[in-house]
Amino acid sequence: MKLASFSTREGPSFGIVRDQAVFDLGKRLNGRYPDMKTFIAADAFAQATQVIDAGQGDFQLSDVTLLPVIPNAGQIFCVGLNYADHIKETGRENTENPAIFMRFPPSQVGHRQAMLRPPESQQFDFEGEIAIIIGQGGRRIAERNAWRHIAGYACYNDGSIRDWQRHTGQWGPGKNFYRTGAFGPWMVTSDEIEPGASMTLVTRLNGNEMQRATTDMLIHGFAELIAYLSTFTPLSAGDVIVTGTPGGVGARRDPPLFMKPGDVTEVEVDRIGVLSNPIAEDA
Amino acid sequence: MKLASFSTREGPSFGIVRDQAVFDLGKRLNGRYPDMKTFIAADAFAQATQVIDAGQGDFQLSDVTLLPVIPNAGQIFCVGLNYADHIKETGRENTENPAIFMRFPPSQVGHRQAMLRPPESQQFDFEGEIAIIIGQGGRRIAERNAWRHIAGYACYNDGSIRDWQRHTGQWGPGKNFYRTGAFGPWMVTSDEIEPGASMTLVTRLNGNEMQRATTDMLIHGFAELIAYLSTFTPLSAGDVIVTGTPGGVGARRDPPLFMKPGDVTEVEVDRIGVLSNPIAEDA
Repeated sequence: MKLASFSTREGPSFGIVRDQAVFDLGKRLNGRYPDMKTFIAADAFAQATQVIDAGQGDFQLSDVTLLPVIPNAGQIFCVGLNYADHIKETGRENTENPAIFMRFPPSQVGHRQAMLRPPESQQFDFEGEIAIIIGQGGRRIAERNAWRHIAGYACYNDGSIRDWQRHTGQWGPGKNFYRTGAFGPWMVTSDEIEPGASMTLVTRLNGNEMQRATTDMLIHGFAELIAYLSTFTPLSAGDVIVTGTPGGVGARRDPPLFMKPGDVTEVEVDRIGVLSNPIAEDA
Repeated sequence: MKLASFSTREGPSFGIVRDQAVFDLGKRLNGRYPDMKTFIAADAFAQATQVIDAGQGDFQLSDVTLLPVIPNAGQIFCVGLNYADHIKETGRENTENPAIFMRFPPSQVGHRQAMLRPPESQQFDFEGEIAIIIGQGGRRIAERNAWRHIAGYACYNDGSIRDWQRHTGQWGPGKNFYRTGAFGPWMVTSDEIEPGASMTLVTRLNGNEMQRATTDMLIHGFAELIAYLSTFTPLSAGDVIVTGTPGGVGARRDPPLFMKPGDVTEVEVDRIGVLSNPIAEDA
């Protein structure tokens, strides 16, 4: 099942995407769940299945504005340096533990919404990634139990302002410019992707392939990340783990290749779909 | 005016603290504002003044559980290495821009609530700091206008799990263990502290002074921090800026001095008050 957050003239909601139809779960479930996060926390997936069995959609997919999959995520953890080829191109060394930084929701947009290049920098770089959305929360989750805490998967473009990322040793500012990251187009529920299944991740800029990897190349795999993060913090429904980018980022190309207004980026993950975003100037 | 978030048998609320009395603004303002963040966003301070003029409090201060000043802050930015003596003791170098990392709300407790030492580490360290609470939001706020965006000030203990902070170059994991940071006891509204007034910050462990500084020793002052952060993200009502710790942290003492269950920490800032927390084991 594909679940998306979206807005229409009637306001923000969330629902099921099937082919070109959107089933509005906010409305169909009588307002019991104000947003996707609440719906996931209530483990209400069975109710969604009943809705989709009941017939026609409420909107055409092309008529809604898709939002970040979880617009109000409580915790968004991102993983740096989690593919060997990316570590190599940055000239850094592998670390025993994952390098974790955070994003806040204002830094995100949904599918087809413009990722914004700020006037403060020309170094706006792409990072195609796979995002995990937490379902059932927990603390100190063992790796062997981690898979059952995953509600679903989405594509993520961890857009980065490189010079601000390097202002100090802490990467947060360069990773939190307003509307620089993209999260979507929807979440594919974890019942459709068996635990540990290899997924292929491809990033394109203006149609040209920039990055390609499979999840078996991850240094710190999904279950390990959940175990690590939940050691220090309770993970809650709707929390997001952005699992790292492969080699091929723009900043490490020769010459460097940064995104500029008018460009289009795509992050494709098989069995999830394609997250596509134009680049625009932050005016 | 002192504003606090608290909980009682009736549930969570927020209100005014005057001497030993608490005026419940959640109730008195007829539920218009479900929490302090909403109240600040509505700039409803004048309504609070009317309540306090109307007479007696609703609770004794000793009968409520104080919560983090803004329990549901959208963005919590912390500043590392912002006092010269702390930079020196860490052996690091000054940077032109502030070193920014983030905390999420689960990492926080309120006044008198236990800060928890996790079983994963013995290296639980204190960091006394001053927190700014944002009132009127904004983006690209000029330094000269920054003061008008401050709703108030509070004490903060940026409790840190040092070995986890050093797992990689990114400090987030060591700064986000569950209930390791303290934020309180309340917020003193900015009308009571003139822009740029020097404040004195003192940290004590079991009554012994560990850290002392005044805000004129800050490398990146309050207005500069607001300007810097708002360059990359829109600041919103209830966002928090934890402005950095002076020299004297436990990890840099010889021998190192870490907090252990049974200890009591205090962070005192003149004109705000004393934030006091016992240390307990995270069971």
